[in-house]
Parts: sequence; C-alpha cells; structure tokens
Amino acid sequence: MTNAAPWDGVISDDDKRRYELAGFGRPSGVGTRPALLIIDVQYRTLGDSPKPFDEAIEDYTTACGDVGWKALEQITRLLALFRQHDFPVLYPHVAPKRPYDAGTLGAKVPSIMDVPEQGYRIPPQIEPAPQDVMLPKKHPSAFFGTPLASHLIDLRADTLVVTGCSTSGCVRSTVVDAFAYNFKVLVPHDAVYDRSETVHQVNLFDMGQKYADVVSTDDALAVIDGLGTGRG
Amino acid sequence: MTNAAPWDGVISDDDKRRYELAGFGRPSGVGTRPALLIIDVQYRTLGDSPKPFDEAIEDYTTACGDVGWKALEQITRLLALFRQHDFPVLYPHVAPKRPYDAGTLGAKVPSIMDVPEQGYRIPPQIEPAPQDVMLPKKHPSAFFGTPLASHLIDLRADTLVVTGCSTSGCVRSTVVDAFAYNFKVLVPHDAVYDRSETVHQVNLFDMGQKYADVVSTDDALAVIDGLGTGRG
Amino acid sequence: MTNAAPWDGVISDDDKRRYELAGFGRPSGVGTRPALLIIDVQYRTLGDSPKPFDEAIEDYTTACGDVGWKALEQITRLLALFRQHDFPVLYPHVAPKRPYDAGTLGAKVPSIMDVPEQGYRIPPQIEPAPQDVMLPKKHPSAFFGTPLASHLIDLRADTLVVTGCSTSGCVRSTVVDAFAYNFKVLVPHDAVYDRSETVHQVNLFDMGQKYADVVSTDDALAVIDGLGTGRG
Amino acid sequence: MTNAAPWDGVISDDDKRRYELAGFGRPSGVGTRPALLIIDVQYRTLGDSPKPFDEAIEDYTTACGDVGWKALEQITRLLALFRQHDFPVLYPHVAPKRPYDAGTLGAKVPSIMDVPEQGYRIPPQIEPAPQDVMLPKKHPSAFFGTPLASHLIDLRADTLVVTGCSTSGCVRSTVVDAFAYNFKVLVPHDAVYDRSETVHQVNLFDMGQKYADVVSTDDALAVIDGLGTGRG
Repeated sequence: MTNAAPWDGVISDDDKRRYELAGFGRPSGVGTRPALLIIDVQYRTLGDSPKPFDEAIEDYTTACGDVGWKALEQITRLLALFRQHDFPVLYPHVAPKRPYDAGTLGAKVPSIMDVPEQGYRIPPQIEPAPQDVMLPKKHPSAFFGTPLASHLIDLRADTLVVTGCSTSGCVRSTVVDAFAYNFKVLVPHDAVYDRSETVHQVNLFDMGQKYADVVSTDDALAVIDGLGTGRG
Repeated sequence: MTNAAPWDGVISDDDKRRYELAGFGRPSGVGTRPALLIIDVQYRTLGDSPKPFDEAIEDYTTACGDVGWKALEQITRLLALFRQHDFPVLYPHVAPKRPYDAGTLGAKVPSIMDVPEQGYRIPPQIEPAPQDVMLPKKHPSAFFGTPLASHLIDLRADTLVVTGCSTSGCVRSTVVDAFAYNFKVLVPHDAVYDRSETVHQVNLFDMGQKYADVVSTDDALAVIDGLGTGRG
Repeated sequence: MTNAAPWDGVISDDDKRRYELAGFGRPSGVGTRPALLIIDVQYRTLGDSPKPFDEAIEDYTTACGDVGWKALEQITRLLALFRQHDFPVLYPHVAPKRPYDAGTLGAKVPSIMDVPEQGYRIPPQIEPAPQDVMLPKKHPSAFFGTPLASHLIDLRADTLVVTGCSTSGCVRSTVVDAFAYNFKVLVPHDAVYDRSETVHQVNLFDMGQKYADVVSTDDALAVIDGLGTGRG
Repeated sequence: MTNAAPWDGVISDDDKRRYELAGFGRPSGVGTRPALLIIDVQYRTLGDSPKPFDEAIEDYTTACGDVGWKALEQITRLLALFRQHDFPVLYPHVAPKRPYDAGTLGAKVPSIMDVPEQGYRIPPQIEPAPQDVMLPKKHPSAFFGTPLASHLIDLRADTLVVTGCSTSGCVRSTVVDAFAYNFKVLVPHDAVYDRSETVHQVNLFDMGQKYADVVSTDDALAVIDGLGTGRG
C-alpha cells in the first residue's frame, strides 16, 4: 500500500489516527492459490458503452458509467493473468428477475426489478470461458444463497481477488463474507466501482481497515504473478 | 425520515441525486412483529465509563468512547419499549477469544485477540433478561456462523431493529444479511455507533439507500409502539 | 398417525421401544401458513413413463420407476389443494450439470453428471405456475447454497410440506435443514419416493422420530385444508 | 472396504443391485489434510459408565449405552494418531439448553431440554487439548449455525473424519453438509454409534452410497497415517 490512499480525500487524519490506535488495518496477506471474482460486471452496471454517469443511467438506472469502463480495463488485465496461470475465475452475477424475487429488495429499490435482457450480458472483454464458474445470485453477497463456498473449497482456493460492482454493495458484502469464511481477500481499488466517489472511497477504507488488503491492480498483478510463478 | 439526514455533511447533493436517479432509498417499511438486536454493546466497545475516544481506548483498544454511551441511552429506551410490549430481544455479542479463533481476523486486527474479561460484560442499563437470546458470535454479521435466523423464525419475527456497534462493522454486515433473508430492517441512527463520524455517516447512508430504513430512535419508538398497540 | 406405520417391516419393536424411552417422536404440529416443496420430481428421478425400476433406469440411471409415479399422484392432489388456498409452492430441482459442478458429488456418483436434457423436465401433472418459486440447486438440501430460506421468510411460511425424491437424499436433508431453521415440517410418506423400499422406510422413521411429522397424504390434505379454511 | 459391510443384515442384495445400477457408492477418496470431528461424545449420549442401553437411559434418556463406549475406544485411537501427526481436531458438541433454545426440537423431543450438567461433559479418554476447536451447536449438523466451515478453511483441512453420535442424527447431517461443501469425508463405521442397530446400519449405507467413504477405524487409521507420513 502506497502513501496516497484512495480514501485520502474523505477520511480525515484524525479518523486514520483512531483506526491506527485501535489496531486495525494490518495486512492479512495472501495464501497460495487465488481465485478471481468478477462481480456483476454486466451492461446493467456499466451502461451499453463508455459514457458519463448521467448518460449511462439512461441505458439502465443501475449503470455507473465511465468509472465502470475504467475498472473494466483493470479487470481485463487481472483476468488475463489468472488465465495465464490457470487460476480459477468465477462470475457471480445478477440473473433476470422473476416476480417471486422481489422480497425486501423490490421494496427498497423497485427499479431493480425491471432491467432489459441486454443489461444482464457480460461484455466480451471479460467473456467467461467454459471452465469458469457462473454463479447467479439474488442477494448482495456472492456467498449468500449460492454455492460459492462449495466451489471455492472444491477449487482449493484460499485467496480471493474481488473485482466489480458496486464497491459499497455486492463487492463489500462479498468481501465481508469471504473474511468471515477465513479466506484471504485482495481488493484492487481501481478494479471495483460505484456510482458515488465518496461512497466508493469510504467503503474501500472500511474494507482495508477490517476485512481485506486494498491495493492497486498493479500491486495485485505482482502478487498473483508471484504465486503463479512460485507454483509453476 | 426528516429533511436533515445524518449523512448530510459527507454525502454531496450530486451523490444524493445519483442515488435518487438510480431509484435507491425507497422505504421498505415494517412487518407486524419486531425483534430488537443489541449488537456488541459491551465495555470493550464503550470503554469502562463515559469519556472521550482518546481516553476510552486506554480501557480497550476497541472502545469508541462517548458516542457509544450516548447511543446506549437510546438503546435503553428501545429496550424498555420492547419489554413493555413483550417483543423479543436478542444480544449478539463477542465472546472471549480462544487461540483457535484468530483466523483472518487475527491477521487483520491482532489487538482484538487480547481483550480483558471485563471488556466482554454488558452494562447493567441493558442487562439481558432470562428469556432474551444470548448469541455469541465470531464474525462481523450476527447471522454468520450463528443460529440467529433459526431463532428469528422460531420467534416469528419479521422486522429487525438493529442497534449497537460498530455502524460500519457488525451492525452493517448484520443489516445486509437481514435484508438478504428478507426481514424488514429499521436502523435508529442514534442507537448505533462507530469510532469515526465520517465512516458512521457513510455507512448509515449506504444502509438507508440499499438495505434498511434509517430513522431516529424517536421515530423507531413510534413505529414499534404502533405495532405493539395494534397487536394488543 | 395410524397404528400401521410405513416402517413397521424394518424397524423392530425393540427399536421402537428404545426411541419411545428416549422421548423421541413427539408431534411438532403445524403453524398457520404452509408452503409446498416439490423436490426433484423430474423425469430423471421418475423415468419417462410409469414402469418397473429395472426398466426405468434404462431411461436414466437416477430413475426410481413406479414408486415415483405413484407418489406423483399424491403430489398432484397436494398441489391442487395448495393452489385452491393460494398457499405458496416451491420447486427445488436439479439443473443440468456444468463441468465445474462435479465436486465431491462427481467423485461419489459419477453417472449423475451425464443426464440428457429431457431428464430435467417437470411432468405436466405438476407444471409450475408463473408465481411458483423455481429453485435450482447443486446439493442435496434445498436450503444449501440456495435462497430458499429467504423465499420462505418473504412468503411468511412457517410450515413446510415436503414431497418428492429421494426420501433418503434430497428430501431428508431438506427436512433436517427445515427443522434446524425452526420451520414445522410435514412429510406425507406416500408423496416421497426412493429407489429402495428399506431405505425409504428407515428414513421415514428417522424423520418422524427427530425432525418432522410423518403422515399420509390424506392426513396432510386434511391439515392443510383446515389451515386454508381457518384463514379464509 | 471389505466384502462384509455393516449393513449386510438389513440392506437386501436387490437393493444393493439397484444402487449399483444407479451408479452410486463410488469412493470419493481423501485429500491431503484431514481434520477429526468428534461429535456429541458426552456422557449424555454414552451414559455415565459402560452398561447396556436399558440401564444407560436411566442416566440420561439420550444415552446409547455399550455401543457408545465401544465406539469411544475407536475414537480414542483416531485421536491419538491425529495428535501424533498434529492434524486438527474439533469437538462439535451440545451445550446446556437455555429456555430460548426449545424451537421445533423442544416440540419433537421434549426430554432433550432437561439434561443434568454432568451429561454435557466429555470423557477424559478424549479430553480436548487447548488448541482443539470447541464448537457448541444447537442443531443436528455441526455446520448449521456454527462457524465450522470457517474453522476448516482456516485450518486448511480438505478431508473430514467424522466420528461420534448419533449415526442417524448429528453424524449424518454433518456428513451431508460436509459433502455439500465439497470436503472429502471418511466415516469409520465402528467409531459412530446410535440407539438402534438397524437405523445405524441403514444410515451407514446411505452415507456410503451418497456422501462419504465408510470404512473401518483400522482402514481409516492407515489412510490418515499415510497422509501424515507423506506430509512429514
């Protein structure tokens, strides 16, 4: 982690001092076998093409726009390295909603129930391969109500690199569950995205203090490559 | 929800506009039978007596100080109303750590492994009654690795009022899981606390946008009293 | 429960006496709002048409044959009553396997990885309606790695009527989890089926002693109808 | 696995043929790092000393008597080997019941709510060491509502040796969940026990066909010793 952190603009020095005094934020490190999670990177969270937020939400109300397309570039780099080392890749994603899926979500965010088919597609830059695990989910965490933990145990993964959208929603809740399961977690801060920069930053800070090592994609690539080379 | 929100100081008008456009933040409402969750309100998160943060952490590195003691007053009011209407009360709490509990937590926040016995006590203002459910937990969410969901189903609760500490840690992750289980969730913003005001505010914003209705304790008391009276 | 139990042929009087002395097998009763679970009733567990076991397994190695088709008649009666009272119906079912689904199951029962498409279809007698919850699953219990608990909480169900296949596999493990979640459970013994009569009987005995009320479909229909009438 | 199986007396040749035709019962094998689960081996399931079933249930209605004490000898051998190789040992166990623990269990088996303190003790032959994981549980499966999965991931265990009581209750439901999580599972048939021999045998058959490799303690010791030696 470098001196300039993504949350510098919003987390004050006094807040940082408090967490430091409380003993939070120590690095948890990595294990030996990483898995890449690409969460909800679908046109519904990106928009149909790179464009500012205000235009992207005309494609889908759930779209984040340009920040998503920038993160997609970083995710593409991570994916290439995982494929090169033959490390497992999983795609937790939102499947089209059925009437019986409303629940508390349908009350809290009604617009989410009505997204066109195209919105659920995954862009070709990060197209899933036949051996990748496709994991439809109904709830924020990729672990909740899915067999993700079973897949990770089967794949013998001990370290998760978590990417995608949104930083404050599905990414964060997946990271919290991964931490609770005692997986090591890396969050590349430029490979996750959100519709609000402040929310994005504070959630990165929270994850970095309590649940995960928050690093740049460059640093994550170096760590993963080290594991892959050491393994080979 | 009133015009002045707890997150006004940190979430910009443009960010609010983005969430509004995305269709987030609609009220999810309540059901008919609420349960009160009092999470981690132990001396280890409060300090041994009301005092500023910098003094409280000399009692326990995990203490939040004055903000905790203020929230405790609100929790005490909520507890009294729940007892009056004979609604269920549950105390998810941290139990003393054993060597085998370290896991990723021990790596990320090593100081948390070494808290004196007194730190685990619950203050007398909110002393558990014999029928209350005591729920020791090892991980942030009160649902993770505990039988909380089973207790709530047994108690026929459909609505959770979530209080305690920390807003960004165990409170938030419990709220996300409660939402995923399709419980209705109320978070009284002055009955939860954190070591950083900014982090507290942004996490309240996130919960209010996506997972819960964030209200004042006054408003929560009115809602619960309505359910209790309607029931009788 | 009548004097002649389905397990009379295999559980000895001394065994029954032992369980009686241990205090097992008391009725748990029902709540107020039942949900019907129809588990894995697909051609792959039935065979393509009613026929003896030895012929059915030529359709699919996982087929049970005639006993399945007989149970299907009872499930059809239960489904009609649930539809009449507008009680919720859920279909946990096995979805076509993908290469990454093998896991321990692929090692233990390799033939299960290679079932033709038609085997996954649900017969028209019990065709799902648009409002029914379709629940693809990868593991024996309908709760494991699925959002079943969330759906049941959303539907406000407190009682499960569990039907389908196999008695010793997905039915039993679903019943155990339903019990652990504190749902009330009814198992109509002639609406569940298995490839071995002895195994079927002993598993019914186990469930009746520890986890569920095991009754005839006739008795279950009377209980459900009582709940539906009382509700209207 | 030898020619004489523990279920030979109750599972007919035709039933065996049916499972064979269905392709069940293939060995799943073991991984590289085993963990030993000793489930509910407390005086409440044994009786206070070795004696026949009818006398043991005068100590505790939940006691199995002599069969438990015989299994305890095998568990003691397994424990010694795990300690020798420094492989992890976990004790899922029943903690004394509180009033709020009744749930569906209290309805189904009311006698289970009222066991004297001594009944919860673990016998000295298999006394837990400080580094062993103590895991109080409320429900049949050692995974349900407990952090067992998190401990196993932290311990890097990929294979579970499941022992204790009862074969048809907590052992079986733990084995089913372990299988669903994609752990490899070994059940030493003479290190698990139940109050009914028939029920014991059929549950061993079910587990062997679908979820686990069922072997003798002798064979399990050889396998574990191989892993320990290969590791060193």
